[in-house]
This record gives sequence, C-alpha cells and structure tokens, in this order.
Amino acid sequence: MNKKNKSAHPTSQNLVEVTSRISKSERTQRNQHEGGVLWFTGLPGSGKSTLAVELERALYDKGFNAYILDGDNVRGGLNSDLGFLPKDRTENIRRVSEVAALMADSGLIIIAAFISPYQSDRDRARAATSHNFHEIAVVADLETCETRDPKGHYKRARAGEIPDFTGVSAPYEKPKSPDLLVDTESASIDACVDLLLEYVQNNFAP
Amino acid sequence: MNKKNKSAHPTSQNLVEVTSRISKSERTQRNQHEGGVLWFTGLPGSGKSTLAVELERALYDKGFNAYILDGDNVRGGLNSDLGFLPKDRTENIRRVSEVAALMADSGLIIIAAFISPYQSDRDRARAATSHNFHEIAVVADLETCETRDPKGHYKRARAGEIPDFTGVSAPYEKPKSPDLLVDTESASIDACVDLLLEYVQNNFAP
Repeated sequence: MNKKNKSAHPTSQNLVEVTSRISKSERTQRNQHEGGVLWFTGLPGSGKSTLAVELERALYDKGFNAYILDGDNVRGGLNSDLGFLPKDRTENIRRVSEVAALMADSGLIIIAAFISPYQSDRDRARAATSHNFHEIAVVADLETCETRDPKGHYKRARAGEIPDFTGVSAPYEKPKSPDLLVDTESASIDACVDLLLEYVQNNFAP
Repeated sequence: MNKKNKSAHPTSQNLVEVTSRISKSERTQRNQHEGGVLWFTGLPGSGKSTLAVELERALYDKGFNAYILDGDNVRGGLNSDLGFLPKDRTENIRRVSEVAALMADSGLIIIAAFISPYQSDRDRARAATSHNFHEIAVVADLETCETRDPKGHYKRARAGEIPDFTGVSAPYEKPKSPDLLVDTESASIDACVDLLLEYVQNNFAP
C-alpha cells in the first residue's frame, strides 16, 4: 500500500497519499514531449480561442498531445455554479488551474484559454502547475477587440446588458512579465500559430 | 472563428463555443484505445487506491495511457475548500466527475478512486462522462476493511475522533448495478488487477 498518513483536520480526514508508479519521465518518454500548460490570457476578442483551436491542431499534427481548456468546456460543467463577479472569476481560475495542473501531470500540453483578468490568479495558476507553466499574453487593442466582437458581446456590454464585462465594465490587468507575447493585431493567425509552435518545440522537448 | 453564441444569463455571459479540430476518433487512433473512466467506489480500506496504483502501472505497461484521480491529488488542490459533510462530498464528486470527463475526452483512461458513497453522485459522474464510463465496485466486508485499517482511520473513527467517516458514522450506498465487481476479500490484488486489465482490453479497444 503506497500510502502515507496526513493531518486529521476535517478537510483531510481520510486522505492517504497514493504514489503513482508511473514517473513523469516515463510519460515524457512515451509522448516524446513534456507535459505543461500554455496559459492564454487576454481581452475578450483578443484571439485566445481562435489561436487555441489552431494551435491544438498544429501541435497534434506535429505529434504533440495537446488539449484545450476554455470557458466553454469548463463553465458549462466543472464551474457551472460560478458567475462573473470578482470572487467567482477567481474561483473559476483557481479550479481551472488545478485541472490544468493535473492534466499537465498526465503528460498533456494544456492550452488554457481564459480572459483571466487578474495577475494574482494567473500567478496562482503558475504555482499550481509548478513545472512547465507558460503565461502567454494574447494582445490586441481594446478598440480592435471591440471591432471584431463577432457575437456582439462588447456591444451588449456597452449597452449595459452584460454586467462585469472585461474591458468595458470590469478590469483587465495586463501580464507583468509574460513568457511570450502574441500580438494578434499586427500578425496573422497563421503567423501567431507558427510563433507558438516554435515556442512549444523549444520548451517542451523531452 | 469556430464559435456559437450562448444564452445571456450571468453565468454564461461571454461564453463562446470553441470546437476542437481534433476528433475523438483521431485521439483514439493515436492512443490505440478509447478514452474513458473507470470509477472505483468502495468503503475505506476496500482496496481502491492499491488497485488504482497497480492497475495504472499494468495498463501503462500494456501501452494504455492511464491516469489516477483520487482524494490525494484532488482534495489537496481542486477540492481543498471542501470538507466531508454530505453536501461537500457531493460537490467533491461532482467536480471530480467533470474533471474525469475532460480527461477522458482528452483520450486518457482515468482511474477515479473515491469512496463516493452516494449512488446519485455516481450516477451524475456517469452522466458527466456520457461515453465509456464504468462503475467498478471494489468490495470487501466492513470487518475486513476495518481490520486492514493501515493508518488507523477506522480506529479513530470508532473513537469518535473522525466525524462522518464512511462505514462507521456516515452511510455507504452499495452500487445498484456496477459494471464490474472486484472482490478484494476473496481474490488477491494481482488477480483483481488481471480482471480489471482484461475488462479494459475488452471495453476500450479502438
């Protein structure tokens, strides 16, 4: 029984540590790349989701096992109980950070695409993954994002129909020192994906 | 932009659907097995964790990409805010179910090892994964589990030092119709792992 005892307070009353018999290096060797997290942060409309989808495809075609976490597959399930107030956003990102960390531990390259407007939340995401976490700033001017506005969210936010909308009625804290900056304003999506692909090839080698 | 609009209520104000360009069948083909969830349920001491660790190793050696979710890697991170009251247990299992579903969607075989004492919670776990979910009853008599008691949890629960302890001071609802029953009372761990391995080979073929 690979188990160790833990403290006895109510939130860990019957926890026992299970030590997997598969090492991180074994998973890396099988996948031929390390697991880790590419954390995309940016304004609504900055291009996070589009880049995530195209990068996942490009990575997969190169033999990388990648997987997207985003508002769509998390807000509808795991975080369906959360709204968009600051405390909910923080809890949303906290849970996603932990899931990204687990999935990275399983050997996957996780592309997490979330507005994630607070630096403190992104710092916690980095701490959760601990190894191979990359904060990617997806950048375009607010005006550009608002012009793109494919689904009219900005327009509705300006009309007061969507409360706490990042960039309009809720703050966005720019990354202080991102690991990579991807500028979707001046570069094409293809060029951005190429940049990201090269970044992954350089940073996730076995 | 592979996006679709969603409803406008506060918990989904800015959700846009991101359609991955990697299909489930592509992932299956690369892994040479389907993704899915083996959900171990049973009393404390029934052998869930031991079986999970040994099965993960055995699966990995056969070329399957498996990963364990259990109290240890979830209670300390994702669910560190939850205790052991019925509502907390239900929320614990709800979140784990969603994570297991995401990880299964990524192509992995998830071995989820949780007491998960309520049938309704396990039914929700099945609904979350939707495809290739297997409820595995890990069974031993309470007396046997209590005798094993490697860390003295039962003893402390009997002494009233651990509240809401499943089998002693909190209920365990036996699976109504598990997909597989693994009896760790009458069979050795090796024999149980062999049984599970055969089950996976039969149920996760590409």
